[in-house]
Amino acid sequence: MRIGELSKATDVPVPTIKYYLREGLLPAGELSSPNQAAYGAAHVRRLRLIRALIDLAQVPVAQVKEILRSLDNDTESLHDQIGRAHRALTPPRRVTTTPEARAAATARVQALIHDRQWSVEPDAPALATLIDTLAAMETLGQTNLADHLDAYADAVETFTQLEVASVTTNPTRDQLAESVIIGTILGETLIASLRLLSQESTSATLWKPR
Amino acid sequence: MRIGELSKATDVPVPTIKYYLREGLLPAGELSSPNQAAYGAAHVRRLRLIRALIDLAQVPVAQVKEILRSLDNDTESLHDQIGRAHRALTPPRRVTTTPEARAAATARVQALIHDRQWSVEPDAPALATLIDTLAAMETLGQTNLADHLDAYADAVETFTQLEVASVTTNPTRDQLAESVIIGTILGETLIASLRLLSQESTSATLWKPR
Repeated sequence: MRIGELSKATDVPVPTIKYYLREGLLPAGELSSPNQAAYGAAHVRRLRLIRALIDLAQVPVAQVKEILRSLDNDTESLHDQIGRAHRALTPPRRVTTTPEARAAATARVQALIHDRQWSVEPDAPALATLIDTLAAMETLGQTNLADHLDAYADAVETFTQLEVASVTTNPTRDQLAESVIIGTILGETLIASLRLLSQESTSATLWKPR
Repeated sequence: MRIGELSKATDVPVPTIKYYLREGLLPAGELSSPNQAAYGAAHVRRLRLIRALIDLAQVPVAQVKEILRSLDNDTESLHDQIGRAHRALTPPRRVTTTPEARAAATARVQALIHDRQWSVEPDAPALATLIDTLAAMETLGQTNLADHLDAYADAVETFTQLEVASVTTNPTRDQLAESVIIGTILGETLIASLRLLSQESTSATLWKPR
């Protein structure tokens, strides 16, 4: 298809597609004549992934480039490709916590990972975020929530099982990798918005004046 | 306590505390002499809440002011105070979706809310985010995840029950409101980081080369 059709198929304006082409986010189309390029299904999928990363997850363009380069590198394992995207999707958090709270939180998280036999890299950014969050709960006097860490982890494992089951139906490895990345992004927004609605409803039941 | 002690108790630097005082985020201390103010437990709690909103949830200062003004307004119900914070905590998402996908997502979400008898305002930002997310899943060809919407909602209701149980132990209404807001922020980070870790572990099991 031509660039105009690609734009229609993906709902991405032509100038934006041209910007992605210039920035190297989207591979060039196949030249069908000296100044006409043809695009295919792979371009449609790639454009959707770019939009999910930039618009939904607000990943900076430079990092999107890195994720895409990793996806296009056939010598990199699927696990490494997903890991690279994960790293870009974990926003850095600035938290002030006491050293004692951090030490206790670290021990707590290590025990959780050990008990659940989770296989995670020691430098995973999500690990640092989890420790920071538990330490912040302690520092902010919100320890009650942390007492339910196992219940949260149970629910989260359910999410992961649902998500794995839903991505493994993808026919190719490329599509699988893209699905995992998009699913990570959209799943987070899905859970966060459902949680706020459920909280609002509970608050209405308990605390809304009649 | 004096400003230096307040700083020590909360781990917030004195210049930052002075900035919050100037901006009206933190109420002035009680003047114990013409140029010395005394701060109490309410200041410690308020500072922690400000830090959670600004540092963890990255809420802009202007919105933090609005949330705090609502908390200090005794004529506003607890439900309305929580609602105001919720609105500040739902980031706007720019998503391109087709009108058809949006219509289908809207119907889906309305059915969910009806089935679960959730009491939510029609203009709740989380409602728009949830609809956008489902429409984006459809547009991005990730409908498998949306099929599990009920399983996600079940898990999220479990979170809310745990969270309500953990905040209702607060002795005063002010502390309860603050706990709900901090719990909303920290809970989201907790769930998101646990989810990434669980995904990483599953990815290692399934897709890591040995």
